Amino acid sequence: MPHLRELTLDDIEALAVGAWVLGTGGGGSPYLGLLNMRRLYAEGHRVALMDPDDLADDDMVAVVSNMGAPLVGQERLTDAANIARAVTLMEEYIGRRFVGIMSVEIGGNNGIQPLMAAALLDRPVVDADAMGRAYPEAQMTSFAVGDLQPWPLTLVDPRGIEGIVARVPTWKWMERMSRKMCVEAGSIAATCKAPRTGAEVKRWGIPRTTTQAINLGRAIHAAQRAHRDPVAAILETEDGRLMFRGKIADVARRTTEGFLRGSTRIEGLDEFRASTMEIAFQNEWAVAWQDGVPRVMTPDLICVLDTVSGEAIGTETLRYGQRVTVIALRAPPVFLSPRGLDFVGPRAFGYDIEFKSVFA
Amino acid sequence: MPHLRELTLDDIEALAVGAWVLGTGGGGSPYLGLLNMRRLYAEGHRVALMDPDDLADDDMVAVVSNMGAPLVGQERLTDAANIARAVTLMEEYIGRRFVGIMSVEIGGNNGIQPLMAAALLDRPVVDADAMGRAYPEAQMTSFAVGDLQPWPLTLVDPRGIEGIVARVPTWKWMERMSRKMCVEAGSIAATCKAPRTGAEVKRWGIPRTTTQAINLGRAIHAAQRAHRDPVAAILETEDGRLMFRGKIADVARRTTEGFLRGSTRIEGLDEFRASTMEIAFQNEWAVAWQDGVPRVMTPDLICVLDTVSGEAIGTETLRYGQRVTVIALRAPPVFLSPRGLDFVGPRAFGYDIEFKSVFA
Repeated sequence: MPHLRELTLDDIEALAVGAWVLGTGGGGSPYLGLLNMRRLYAEGHRVALMDPDDLADDDMVAVVSNMGAPLVGQERLTDAANIARAVTLMEEYIGRRFVGIMSVEIGGNNGIQPLMAAALLDRPVVDADAMGRAYPEAQMTSFAVGDLQPWPLTLVDPRGIEGIVARVPTWKWMERMSRKMCVEAGSIAATCKAPRTGAEVKRWGIPRTTTQAINLGRAIHAAQRAHRDPVAAILETEDGRLMFRGKIADVARRTTEGFLRGSTRIEGLDEFRASTMEIAFQNEWAVAWQDGVPRVMTPDLICVLDTVSGEAIGTETLRYGQRVTVIALRAPPVFLSPRGLDFVGPRAFGYDIEFKSVFA
Repeated sequence: MPHLRELTLDDIEALAVGAWVLGTGGGGSPYLGLLNMRRLYAEGHRVALMDPDDLADDDMVAVVSNMGAPLVGQERLTDAANIARAVTLMEEYIGRRFVGIMSVEIGGNNGIQPLMAAALLDRPVVDADAMGRAYPEAQMTSFAVGDLQPWPLTLVDPRGIEGIVARVPTWKWMERMSRKMCVEAGSIAATCKAPRTGAEVKRWGIPRTTTQAINLGRAIHAAQRAHRDPVAAILETEDGRLMFRGKIADVARRTTEGFLRGSTRIEGLDEFRASTMEIAFQNEWAVAWQDGVPRVMTPDLICVLDTVSGEAIGTETLRYGQRVTVIALRAPPVFLSPRGLDFVGPRAFGYDIEFKSVFA
């Protein structure tokens, strides 16, 4: 029997804060998932966390996410029943029962989606994801880098729309087909991605990112309570780098093709006075230029934080006048190989820039 | 045991000609399906026709079509393996074996699609469809008028893309979700629509339209061979009405949103000299105006024929200078009720015109 650790509501409060930082601007606001979990815990539901090493090789694991444009997620609120239905639809389709549920991306609200499904379906959450952060597209995962089977995918909209991408020739085709279904349903849908075996999760998953996000959230909470600098606490916990500090001077944002795209300009403050940072995003922060020079870029994590609270700011909640601090965190090693960079490097987002890590 | 009639290649040659007339401009050119059937018959395959009354109530029937923009079908050629795979994917999904295969629309190449699948899968073709002609959208069927369950649908592209619309709240949502998948695959895809029981086919199918199309094609062939007027033969066989004769003076055509949309202007000849007919289309001919006055409209069948050969001209093969005769044929009664007109009347195509049949 695997060892399961029951998550407290306090763990989940910390997870919401930590996952929002790891979301690098995307994955949707975890606050909405947190509201779901508070209610589910009040109703008596509990969720346990399972270490990926406790999976048997032939166990089947559900991989979930709320897919679409984060801005739409502020209008069409996430609900536990939707993500649970995406999981049971997949079980009906493949004729197997999932031993556990994991997120495709720990970042943002998608770090909480597996807990929402797990609470309703009484399964453990597997302590792993496939990004170690958030990325906008289906093929931007460690599972794709590992060349695992991209299909099937189930997609659920609460009005009674259910779709299955049963087979695709490539991961990019999975992105294309599922994205169009998602857009037609209104640019947000609950999805269960290609099921993974325990062996696949152990070989290609990014391990223990739920625990990582909880610990990160706890460090931020502790610093806030002790009136220490929460940004410094994040840099210390994650061995990150301070990149910039300033004030949001401009935000250009549009919801298009199932994504939230745009850019922001930050005017420097303190030691960054007289300097400007521009950051482009596709759901998540992709590339940051300081005074016109590329400074931080995917797959390094670009995190835009509230300078005072240390909490993350999403690409959909960013607004003029916010005082922000930009930091960089380390990418999971799987994305730093030449093949990894093919999937998530700057060129995968349309920027003709050679990847250079701030940690190199 | 049901009585099955083996179709001869001569029957299928006639079917191709008759189905093209009943396609009212759409359904794709049957010539491409005919080429498939000639090869399949040369390889020794044979197809039998089954009367719908020979279906048991709980028999399951596959309902197929090649979905998309007819113009794209001239570039991405239809192939029997694709439509057969849409059927077997549906069998795998629902866990039932189909007793027979029918077309959702007898018109155009879709009148031949069930034969292509039937030849490869060794099942009979059920002598019925759900339109009695061709229509562009998924909800424009007698099954939708009968309020039968719209889901599931399987969709296949030969590059290895397979999708399932597993559940939808309405027929219109089936159209929306399947259309977006079809467009992303390149605006043509082989589809297996919601499976029907024998009882549903007997109650809501348009019966014996394969036989109708074969007889119509035979009448055209006979007139051609005897140097009689093939258009007159069609009008006599189908009790149709001559509406207009002239020369194509203009064609406006665009492939958009998975459809072929546009209009044509015909300058009158003979007794129609000094008169002009304009016909708007969405894959199929929808409304014809003579000198600005609505003259024929859906669900009445508008057929544009080559004046000399009597063979149909599709919206994708229409071109300047063709000598054409426009005729009207009778719509299946199921579409003439107020509910039927909600699905396929002029307003369903965006024309604010009260339906008036030329046969009233």
